[in-house]
Amino acid sequence: MGAIMKEALLHMLTENEGQFVSGQEISNKLNCSRTAIWKHISELRNNGYSIEAVQKRGYRLITSPDLVTAEEVSLYTGKGSFGKKIVYQPSVKSTQEIAYSLARDGAPEGSIVLADEQTGGRGRLGRAWQSPAGTGIWMSLILRPEIPLQKAPQLTLLIAVAASKAIEKVTGLEAAIKWPNDLLINGKKTAGILTELQAEADSIHSVIVGIGMNVNQESKHFSEEIAQIATSLAIEGGKTYKRAEVIGYLLQEIESLYHQYLQNGFGVIKLLWEARAFSLGKRITARSVTGSITGYAKGITDEGVLLLEDDTGRVHSIYSADIEIPSP
Amino acid sequence: MGAIMKEALLHMLTENEGQFVSGQEISNKLNCSRTAIWKHISELRNNGYSIEAVQKRGYRLITSPDLVTAEEVSLYTGKGSFGKKIVYQPSVKSTQEIAYSLARDGAPEGSIVLADEQTGGRGRLGRAWQSPAGTGIWMSLILRPEIPLQKAPQLTLLIAVAASKAIEKVTGLEAAIKWPNDLLINGKKTAGILTELQAEADSIHSVIVGIGMNVNQESKHFSEEIAQIATSLAIEGGKTYKRAEVIGYLLQEIESLYHQYLQNGFGVIKLLWEARAFSLGKRITARSVTGSITGYAKGITDEGVLLLEDDTGRVHSIYSADIEIPSP
Repeated sequence: MGAIMKEALLHMLTENEGQFVSGQEISNKLNCSRTAIWKHISELRNNGYSIEAVQKRGYRLITSPDLVTAEEVSLYTGKGSFGKKIVYQPSVKSTQEIAYSLARDGAPEGSIVLADEQTGGRGRLGRAWQSPAGTGIWMSLILRPEIPLQKAPQLTLLIAVAASKAIEKVTGLEAAIKWPNDLLINGKKTAGILTELQAEADSIHSVIVGIGMNVNQESKHFSEEIAQIATSLAIEGGKTYKRAEVIGYLLQEIESLYHQYLQNGFGVIKLLWEARAFSLGKRITARSVTGSITGYAKGITDEGVLLLEDDTGRVHSIYSADIEIPSP
Repeated sequence: MGAIMKEALLHMLTENEGQFVSGQEISNKLNCSRTAIWKHISELRNNGYSIEAVQKRGYRLITSPDLVTAEEVSLYTGKGSFGKKIVYQPSVKSTQEIAYSLARDGAPEGSIVLADEQTGGRGRLGRAWQSPAGTGIWMSLILRPEIPLQKAPQLTLLIAVAASKAIEKVTGLEAAIKWPNDLLINGKKTAGILTELQAEADSIHSVIVGIGMNVNQESKHFSEEIAQIATSLAIEGGKTYKRAEVIGYLLQEIESLYHQYLQNGFGVIKLLWEARAFSLGKRITARSVTGSITGYAKGITDEGVLLLEDDTGRVHSIYSADIEIPSP
């Protein structure tokens, strides 16, 4: 009950940010004693919230820290059902593993797992994903779509579109999608999406969508080598962003597109994806374990497969590869 | 080491079934004492093997019990790599769960889990699968195919073809395939296939193929209601079969088709499947959670999707459904 009260108190202060809320009003709304309020105010201050307390006027939230705790994120999740259940841990190996076991235990669609830091964050194909504390969004979202297995790869593209839209809303910057799962700002990687699932041949049990997004890293946080290919919202936007707010935008964009998709299919998502695609219409090289093909990126199929036309005019279906734009 | 010695001894006796193998020969080949041999013979007898021991002539295997233990099944797995690793337990909740955790721990492709009895056997879509002791094959096989997720449903069809071929080899009976995963003899269900997987959007971690097959049940084992729709190899063939031998045929057929598939794609499998399909070319009803469609079963696509033409001429792609043949 303490956590819910603290969250409700934070909501009241945030809704009236910069203005005083009287102890009496808080006490009435939350049905708790002045002493309990004071206890929660102290805790919030300990968590980094700067709260002014003035006798006879009440409490005023001055600044809030850049946290991704359940109570902070819940300020921004809006009216949808995504993010209604938030599991936060300061440091985890991987949010994906935690989401997996939540999903196995029956966690509802839209549940999310957040961490300030991942010590063993994973990207696509088992690659490591750097997830240092206090800088980015390391999130796993549980979906339970009633779609055929064959259509599951469409979800990666859907999430990429939603993430691109969220970045644009928050920063005003254009975030291009590099097939299948990278988001680029000014040609550099800002976010990646990892879609994992457990399924039968004709029914999906759960999809765990991992989203890693560089938000407040500065250039100096990246090694020289990584700085060539990676960036953050802060580097590109020239200012820092509240991660909880970005998460709120992300969840709202994902939920909205997801419901649209379940109702109307992949058509609209495909158009939105193609409009934001980085590599379409370009000469690219698709590199995979079985070799590499260079050609013209024609588009994607209704199942999210990349179509690549080589120099002989043959069109290849690319299911899994890394895309490179060859130097001219 | 004891288990391996016992298995090797059983192999020697089985290879020379009906003939005596001298204690000296066993002792030389297995590099063990006469006392050790006697100990293993006793154990085998305790397990139900009938072994004659005659002084100066040696040991002779008269009959072997219908077991699905690792040592018994290993007599029939042939030279392939499927079934090289066998995990056997007399009674389990579900062989699928055990295979899942083996796969997570890195078990190689072709590893199998066998049980004499399942207390919580599962079929497609979470349905219960009756798996009483001593009667059937309850097996899970680990595959690690490097194929796109979109193609994973093809594996169910591949396994169905392999199982149909194995049944024909063992019994001489025709086993028809009812889309997507049932095997029918004389119109009644004899086996089912459950394909489960863990994957990323563009890479499969592991596929766990569950195979349930009624082998030696007699009619009286089925309730009157079930007897209308279910049968066993023994009921249809008029004799009992050694389950371990059927497993051997199954694994060899699966491995052979699987390698063929990985090398040459789905084309051949599709032809084999269509030749054995029960419902193709018939008027059927496909019933799913979202409703039912009746029409003409035209065929399957390259991705294992069933094509159903309704009375208006519209062709529906059926990803998941139960197929019924309506009464005329």
